[in-house]
Amino acid sequence: MINGHTEIIAHIGYPTHSFKAPMIYNPYFEASGINAVVVPMGSKPETYPDLLRSVFTLENIRGALITMPHKMITVDLLDEVTPTVRVAGACNAVKRTADGRLVGDLFDGEGFVRGVQRKGLDLKGARALVVGSGGVGSAIAASLAASGLGTMGLFDVNTASAERLGARLKSQYPSIALKLHTKDPQGYDLVVNATPLGMNEGDPLPIDMDRLSSDTFVGEVVMRTEMTAFLTAAQARGCRIQVGSDMLFEQIPAYLEFFGYPTTTAEHLRSLARLSY
Amino acid sequence: MINGHTEIIAHIGYPTHSFKAPMIYNPYFEASGINAVVVPMGSKPETYPDLLRSVFTLENIRGALITMPHKMITVDLLDEVTPTVRVAGACNAVKRTADGRLVGDLFDGEGFVRGVQRKGLDLKGARALVVGSGGVGSAIAASLAASGLGTMGLFDVNTASAERLGARLKSQYPSIALKLHTKDPQGYDLVVNATPLGMNEGDPLPIDMDRLSSDTFVGEVVMRTEMTAFLTAAQARGCRIQVGSDMLFEQIPAYLEFFGYPTTTAEHLRSLARLSY
Repeated sequence: MINGHTEIIAHIGYPTHSFKAPMIYNPYFEASGINAVVVPMGSKPETYPDLLRSVFTLENIRGALITMPHKMITVDLLDEVTPTVRVAGACNAVKRTADGRLVGDLFDGEGFVRGVQRKGLDLKGARALVVGSGGVGSAIAASLAASGLGTMGLFDVNTASAERLGARLKSQYPSIALKLHTKDPQGYDLVVNATPLGMNEGDPLPIDMDRLSSDTFVGEVVMRTEMTAFLTAAQARGCRIQVGSDMLFEQIPAYLEFFGYPTTTAEHLRSLARLSY
Repeated sequence: MINGHTEIIAHIGYPTHSFKAPMIYNPYFEASGINAVVVPMGSKPETYPDLLRSVFTLENIRGALITMPHKMITVDLLDEVTPTVRVAGACNAVKRTADGRLVGDLFDGEGFVRGVQRKGLDLKGARALVVGSGGVGSAIAASLAASGLGTMGLFDVNTASAERLGARLKSQYPSIALKLHTKDPQGYDLVVNATPLGMNEGDPLPIDMDRLSSDTFVGEVVMRTEMTAFLTAAQARGCRIQVGSDMLFEQIPAYLEFFGYPTTTAEHLRSLARLSY
């Protein structure tokens, strides 16, 4: 129950209507006896920089979860950010250090990475193809690179977008082998759909499935249904898979650790969450 | 449960540890199916003006409850305040109008007034003695004046404080009869202890009880115990009384109405509240 000792995690974005974090974190905080609350804050772009600064003057703020449309601008508003933030060009977690500096990280991609690692995929030196270089694709590419990937394939229908992501990757991780502008899944240990394909009924599949080996691990970011047409087709070929919502739940422990709270498993969080898909 | 549609009431003060509002409002919101939450925000004086401004740029802010040490400065930060705020020199409730203006009111004293009115005291043309011209005494004097009081007695050991309150009262309510610098309760329909006397064991009583008529209604602001020594002595003389916490609970419906929420009774709020005295 909220009282005068409650710490705030500000969940800042606009609009707030589709926010899921309060229904994941707050039941966990309650169940764990952690006196903290995720509070949705609807902040428009023109007032967001001031709001972020002001909210971090609060004595009982523990951190902020940043979401659309503020993830990119946040990179420029902080005192320190991680290489993951630099590669992705986006930041979705902010905290204040003891000496008052605002530091940021990005855990969208970390959720994906933790998920596939827990399913047994070794990313050290591995080859991954990320199809889609938008926000979520950039986040996943950044976290894969941070996990020691050897070869990164990037594809986007907007070729400039893939090139920019590739350049940011190379500047932070010079030793990574980069392959641009092909979405042929052959030869990859991991293939990720980070496009919106699958959000709508009848969308084409993001890659040519005939070129997909059964040894390849397949991940998805679309959460409209657990088993998208892409995952169903990959599973039919014998591939191991990861559903979109795994990325969501696997990233929460990373945030809890970043904010300094006791951590837990994605399964425990999922069992407590009060979401309706 | 907090979700993306939840409205915020920012409860702003410093420190936050003794905040009671979250444990009164939030159980009521939950029980009534109102998707709103009172969020404690610990804001220091040097950053409070910016914080207040920023918090009201949020799309899902419904209002703010302002408490120590910001009630006085808030008067100067708003676009419009009520006569009650002007008299008391303090503001503890802020909302944003449809056209974006910040308006403020003060309901500390309104809680006291609603309480004694519901207990049958008619304040129109009545005579009231308010002992103590600090924050709570000023708030009660302001709300009594707004309720049509005829004569107001003001006493404070700090005579300048009583004089300043008297001057503010006269400027907003020129027709009120003012009596300063005596705490003789004789001839009053209502006597209020708005001093801290009673907070500590062995405090002297705020007035000379021998001069108190059984016809006089006696109110208290101290909440350390329900029946303070002052109330016990007044009841022994046959006076009707009002305990300190009545002021607390009677003011909540006034805030609910100010913020535009469905209102309720002090009793209902008290039955739901999760406070420990």
